[in-house]
Amino acid sequence: MSHTAELIAVGTELLLGSIANTDAQTVSKALSALGINVYFHTVVGDNPQRLRQAVEIARGRADVIITTGGLGPTCDDLTKNVLAECFGKKLVYNEEAARRMEAYFRKLHPDSGKMTENNYQQAYLPEGCVPFQNDWGTAPGCGFEADGVHVLMLPGPPSECGPMLQHRAVPYLSGLTDGVIASRSLRLFGMGESSVEAQLREKMNSMRNPTLAPYAKEGEVELRLTARAETEDAALALIAPAERELRERFGPLVYGVDVPSLEAVCLTLLGEKALTLSAAESCTGGLLAKRVTDLPGASRVFKGGVVSYTNEVKEKALGVPAELLAQYGAVSAPVARAMARGVRALTGSDLALSVTGVAGPDSDERGNPVGLVYLALAWEGGEHVREIHAAGPRPRIRTVAASHGFDLLRRQLAGLPL
Amino acid sequence: MSHTAELIAVGTELLLGSIANTDAQTVSKALSALGINVYFHTVVGDNPQRLRQAVEIARGRADVIITTGGLGPTCDDLTKNVLAECFGKKLVYNEEAARRMEAYFRKLHPDSGKMTENNYQQAYLPEGCVPFQNDWGTAPGCGFEADGVHVLMLPGPPSECGPMLQHRAVPYLSGLTDGVIASRSLRLFGMGESSVEAQLREKMNSMRNPTLAPYAKEGEVELRLTARAETEDAALALIAPAERELRERFGPLVYGVDVPSLEAVCLTLLGEKALTLSAAESCTGGLLAKRVTDLPGASRVFKGGVVSYTNEVKEKALGVPAELLAQYGAVSAPVARAMARGVRALTGSDLALSVTGVAGPDSDERGNPVGLVYLALAWEGGEHVREIHAAGPRPRIRTVAASHGFDLLRRQLAGLPL
Repeated sequence: MSHTAELIAVGTELLLGSIANTDAQTVSKALSALGINVYFHTVVGDNPQRLRQAVEIARGRADVIITTGGLGPTCDDLTKNVLAECFGKKLVYNEEAARRMEAYFRKLHPDSGKMTENNYQQAYLPEGCVPFQNDWGTAPGCGFEADGVHVLMLPGPPSECGPMLQHRAVPYLSGLTDGVIASRSLRLFGMGESSVEAQLREKMNSMRNPTLAPYAKEGEVELRLTARAETEDAALALIAPAERELRERFGPLVYGVDVPSLEAVCLTLLGEKALTLSAAESCTGGLLAKRVTDLPGASRVFKGGVVSYTNEVKEKALGVPAELLAQYGAVSAPVARAMARGVRALTGSDLALSVTGVAGPDSDERGNPVGLVYLALAWEGGEHVREIHAAGPRPRIRTVAASHGFDLLRRQLAGLPL
Repeated sequence: MSHTAELIAVGTELLLGSIANTDAQTVSKALSALGINVYFHTVVGDNPQRLRQAVEIARGRADVIITTGGLGPTCDDLTKNVLAECFGKKLVYNEEAARRMEAYFRKLHPDSGKMTENNYQQAYLPEGCVPFQNDWGTAPGCGFEADGVHVLMLPGPPSECGPMLQHRAVPYLSGLTDGVIASRSLRLFGMGESSVEAQLREKMNSMRNPTLAPYAKEGEVELRLTARAETEDAALALIAPAERELRERFGPLVYGVDVPSLEAVCLTLLGEKALTLSAAESCTGGLLAKRVTDLPGASRVFKGGVVSYTNEVKEKALGVPAELLAQYGAVSAPVARAMARGVRALTGSDLALSVTGVAGPDSDERGNPVGLVYLALAWEGGEHVREIHAAGPRPRIRTVAASHGFDLLRRQLAGLPL
């Protein structure tokens, strides 16, 4: 049986533009993977009358309603009361929810006294619901069924909504659908999203089980295969041939399956091979190092690097010869090579990446165009340079340039052509 | 007269979770500054029937409807047709819109031929509307009035929606409200959002003209004063005493008015004083340099820096004495000082920032807790260290640590106490 869900985000801060409704994206993606249709998102403020109106409209056109926000301890937090009222449910005190909140509160405020009365309000949940205990914050969520509609309530802060969705709401929703859903995400780098989509459009439209959906961002493409079957193994077996076909079609462009990012793949490969990395950056100005060190555990493989934003620093910190800079200019393949060699020598790392280019908004003093970037990878006994012409505004050029660096690195580590 | 607006975002990609509805945030913030209430956001897919349904609901509860998305050249792009139909407007060919599109197309594709027939569809606009010419993409938007409702259509890509809003929709909407709106945004660093709000809550609730609204993110607070008057000067005159009062109350915590970020303020101050900067980073791993070089023109004042993720690199690239590292550990005030001095000597910059700390998820080998960070600023003849205890997950600790670095720098440059 196919389900239709509507998302209702509750919070005046969303209507004032103080924050973006990223919860809606997180929840939508999960519902799409479960094969549940989403036709509408609604955002409403901390106002009981308008929330009631939104719920009444939603129940007329969806059989799953998922709310985010408005579960906290203040008087603004009215989601539970309004939803319980709309569906004729009493709120009852949930002892376990109260104990869990107390434990969480103690962990957060070891020196402080007891929870306030307000906090205990959060332990009241609609009668007969499945409580969603919150291990990532205080406010519990819940799921219940009434009048043929499933209502799920999740907390608003994205750091709570995400894990509550994954560990509480998704298992609840999986119970509503026949069989089991499994999905696999292939991540690609090195082909534009429109080219990938053009190659796959016909195929995507004809596929039913598994389905194939592309997601594009910042020069990367994610291809998600989702299948439904009696068991997870059977669903994965349905996915396997389609995955094989995609891997054959896109070859080394596929950098991983169910991985978070190019840099995470690099970190894993470096760790497996017990190799270390360093970076010398000009136009990316620290972004490459930042992306590596965003990841916990980076310190095991990343030694550090140099942001050489002037020729002086390129010479002094990286030992790039002045003649090279004078002859070819800072944005050139020879300088990229020298930077990579230089930072490798400085840090004693096994591999070293370098980036030098024109991020814009203006071309450089030699007239090199915005978007021209040279990347070099140096290792014991070898090096390689890649020239790219990135399009778009400055932040995109920097992001794409750093990604090309990681692409060079993962190809080298995986024994693929550079 | 007070207006109520509803936002309708059109795009199946929003319902699939491929992208977040950031347009809604951008538009909401602008409407709030204009004094226009927003009670609902709706997101609907590329489906004429459901879009019609969303429009019918919206016109029953708002007198301003703003759509984003669905204005492009493909058959999925149906916003204009549906809205025109709902409000009984014919679509008529707009010669100027067509010419502008051709010009934009030529600029983007100088080597290619003519626009396709599909593209010309975008030049049809509702009869009697105010066309919103699009200088940032191809699809024009528009605004019209029918049955007492103002309908505004904006393109979906954020890079077009933002400027179209600012330069086309806001002037249109300003015409609907009595008088002129002016606003000023004070940016604060160094006090938690809840403390700022607690101090101001009573005041905020009692203020009518100007109004005061706080926006918090990543350890910073923005306080926006908005006033309405006959002229802009009169509106600014209403804001002035409130701004003065806030400045007195928060003193050096206010780092700027109508400025984009702490790092932008630093860049401006450095430029004005013709001083240069470098950075030595441990736990921020390049984030500080990245934030500086996110800004166009950074190369005029930023010389570069070192990401010293290991003690080895701290010694070799920055000249931090091995004894210092052995005695105090990498996360210590003496090492922070030595790092700042070291990168200043290496790059020859006038000022140098350093950061060393524990970003987590685990405490360091000396048992220093997650969130402990030392920042140092070195200049000709002086230096200063700040110790902070940042809370939250790894990304937040890194962001807050980098912001403290910029805070030290702008205080030193502005002659404020460190």
